[in-house]
Amino acid sequence: MNQNDTIVALATASGAGAIAVIRLSGTDAITIAEDCFRSVSKAKKLSKQKTHTIHLGHIVDDTREIDEVLVSVFKNPNSYTGEDVVEVSCHGSHYIQQQIIQLFLRNGCRMADAGEFTLRAFLNGKLDLSQAEAVADLIASDNEASHQIAMQQMRGGFSSEIAKLREELLNFASLIELELDFAEEDVEFADRTQFRELVERITFVLKRLIDSFAVGNVIKNGIPVAIVGEPNVGKSTLLNALLNEERAIVSEIAGTTRDTIEDEISIGGMGFRFIDTAGIRETQDVVESIGIKKTFEKIEQAQVVIYLFDAEQFQVQSSKFKVELEKIKNKYPLKPLLVIANKIDKVDDILLAQMQTEIPEIQLLSAKSGFGVEQLTDSLLGLVNTGALRNNETIITNTRHYDALLKALEEIQKVKYGLDSGLPSDLMAIDIREALYQFGLITGNVTNDELLGNIFANFCIGK
Amino acid sequence: MNQNDTIVALATASGAGAIAVIRLSGTDAITIAEDCFRSVSKAKKLSKQKTHTIHLGHIVDDTREIDEVLVSVFKNPNSYTGEDVVEVSCHGSHYIQQQIIQLFLRNGCRMADAGEFTLRAFLNGKLDLSQAEAVADLIASDNEASHQIAMQQMRGGFSSEIAKLREELLNFASLIELELDFAEEDVEFADRTQFRELVERITFVLKRLIDSFAVGNVIKNGIPVAIVGEPNVGKSTLLNALLNEERAIVSEIAGTTRDTIEDEISIGGMGFRFIDTAGIRETQDVVESIGIKKTFEKIEQAQVVIYLFDAEQFQVQSSKFKVELEKIKNKYPLKPLLVIANKIDKVDDILLAQMQTEIPEIQLLSAKSGFGVEQLTDSLLGLVNTGALRNNETIITNTRHYDALLKALEEIQKVKYGLDSGLPSDLMAIDIREALYQFGLITGNVTNDELLGNIFANFCIGK
Repeated sequence: MNQNDTIVALATASGAGAIAVIRLSGTDAITIAEDCFRSVSKAKKLSKQKTHTIHLGHIVDDTREIDEVLVSVFKNPNSYTGEDVVEVSCHGSHYIQQQIIQLFLRNGCRMADAGEFTLRAFLNGKLDLSQAEAVADLIASDNEASHQIAMQQMRGGFSSEIAKLREELLNFASLIELELDFAEEDVEFADRTQFRELVERITFVLKRLIDSFAVGNVIKNGIPVAIVGEPNVGKSTLLNALLNEERAIVSEIAGTTRDTIEDEISIGGMGFRFIDTAGIRETQDVVESIGIKKTFEKIEQAQVVIYLFDAEQFQVQSSKFKVELEKIKNKYPLKPLLVIANKIDKVDDILLAQMQTEIPEIQLLSAKSGFGVEQLTDSLLGLVNTGALRNNETIITNTRHYDALLKALEEIQKVKYGLDSGLPSDLMAIDIREALYQFGLITGNVTNDELLGNIFANFCIGK
Repeated sequence: MNQNDTIVALATASGAGAIAVIRLSGTDAITIAEDCFRSVSKAKKLSKQKTHTIHLGHIVDDTREIDEVLVSVFKNPNSYTGEDVVEVSCHGSHYIQQQIIQLFLRNGCRMADAGEFTLRAFLNGKLDLSQAEAVADLIASDNEASHQIAMQQMRGGFSSEIAKLREELLNFASLIELELDFAEEDVEFADRTQFRELVERITFVLKRLIDSFAVGNVIKNGIPVAIVGEPNVGKSTLLNALLNEERAIVSEIAGTTRDTIEDEISIGGMGFRFIDTAGIRETQDVVESIGIKKTFEKIEQAQVVIYLFDAEQFQVQSSKFKVELEKIKNKYPLKPLLVIANKIDKVDDILLAQMQTEIPEIQLLSAKSGFGVEQLTDSLLGLVNTGALRNNETIITNTRHYDALLKALEEIQKVKYGLDSGLPSDLMAIDIREALYQFGLITGNVTNDELLGNIFANFCIGK
């Protein structure tokens, strides 16, 4: 990746829209755009225009008009990337987008790599590394919780805390390294009591951040919920009641849902991934039995299990249901399990009472009418520990940060042990440096091409 | 549709992109955006900013930050709609887009109807009606020819010609209507020779425009080409060779392509819609015979037919091929037919010579290696009369315009007949008024809600 190139990419989603935005960034962004632009009002050249201004005109390839566009000019350093940036707002035709991008390519741009605009923003100091990563999270956020965390991370709350601790640690590190120069004289420049206090503080913060990863991970990826039950008990209808739309196929033929379907919906701002399974009834059918094996795999992966049965079947099959429930409870004793009787609109009160006696934890539902759906969503939310989220605490969602924090904690604990056991300064300095390195990996004070490549390859093109 | 409302819509394609643009237009556009916007630099309020400027800040719902955005301000009349317009460039998350649009809706906007931004541009005199219609064509254009026509129409070439003729006709109309006031005195204010000359000129222009519709229609919708041949002769491979990508399923099992597949590709700037068919071999199989019925339907709809056979099969089946070819020629004698022998890499020169003797018009092809593909595309282009396009003449592509032009021509011919036969001024005035009305329908001098509703309902939301 040559950082001196001027890069171009479509910044908006491809597909049918009224308009599309094509973005250029780099030293020649404005002059390249200028050469392909003819102002409607015969105004000054783009390079003579003020930053943050918009200009109406045509993108022209020699004499051929490609489109009437609005061109926005951003002059360095006041742009997203910190470089000169031009955004061309054109009509949303795929043909026009391609023609304009190709024109810019012919005139000296190259196609941007995934995340390259944000990479440049990072390299030009517009964002630190964890903020840059939050941009990708923000674009991917599809519910309130994941959006809130990404916004918080983009504001830099988390990385500024790390950066501050890193700086304090760096101070002590230099004092301790200074001691090495005077090793003969056995002096202590670094106040050991203050240093111990800092190490305790760092340990506390690291532990809190590391602990937050569990909930952060759940928020970012959604909470997997397996819906288990016989064919035709209304799993798809329940999904639809939760989704409020007809996404899964609902039919009256038992065993319709052979392949597992996943649907993510936002309940109370949290993302839940509902995994529809083929149930676990005993069967001779080969396809069905593959489905049942898959069901158990899905239960394994799920954080919550919903066991759904047809209330109409309870009189005849209650013992079978109870066996299946026992099977699940024995196999996954720690996994939260919600037992739901569906189609309760079709049975009488005597049977309902019998069900509640035999399976005390049962929840009653009519997915069709919507009765019990709210109680179910409340139960689901109750299972999620969102305390940290509610208290607006920093939550880690990024595996890379989690790994670096774990390693930093390990090194800090070595430092603490060194302090406790009176380890020589030179050995302690090594552990401190390693902790500093791990902190730096999060904020981007320490980077290498491989690290940056891994991070930005996960971005979409155009950002 | 209340024209005083401030409207909002997503202007970019929905889906995953780096950024998305949300557009507001109307009297309160700037103040509504201002109430939801917090500038990063604590700059002046949006309503105090100059037109065509861009501002960095956050969209906030009370204290909750929804996103960091760029806001573009356009002040009336210098905007697309001619009203105050605000464009919010936010991160491309579906969740964020929805949150921002919902915030604006709560603050006094309503959702824009399809095409409502362009409708307002028309009502505010920023575009005439045919230019507004060209905007939709431009967004839908997916090859050079349809793009060129839409651009030309958007520049107003066609409607300004109509508007000019309408004005001249209007002059004569008023003179003739003036004659009615002096009917007793038998005066002629309108010079009959000049008027006849104008009527001739209008007739000439109308006929040319009406004639252009045939090619315009083909350019706008693509030229349907039916590919007919036995299963396994390589129709899908040929499609792929033309498409340069694996879009249709290519397999070695005869009869794979049971359903007709359509693929549009651009050849020499023209759109061709290739319609893959099930062939026309005699069969007992019910599904196959339905396919053959469909094949004939597709030939009916196509403007060009490609008959494709397997060169390897020629020795055994040549008489069958010739019977099928005769069948097509007899049924559709005027339809251009290209006869192609595929897989010629698998046969010897003697057989090739025999084919060329028995079917003189044959073209040789190896879809797999690409041999003959260029000759085929040349033949296809040769069948299209693109003279008008090459000469940059005005081409009509819009059915509504075509209908209005036909009716205008009809009325103008009545006027001409009236002139020739010395029809009284009062009767002639009626025909002239009807012609003026038809002209006005094209440029938008005459409109009604139903007409506007029909036109703009075909637009996408956000334009």
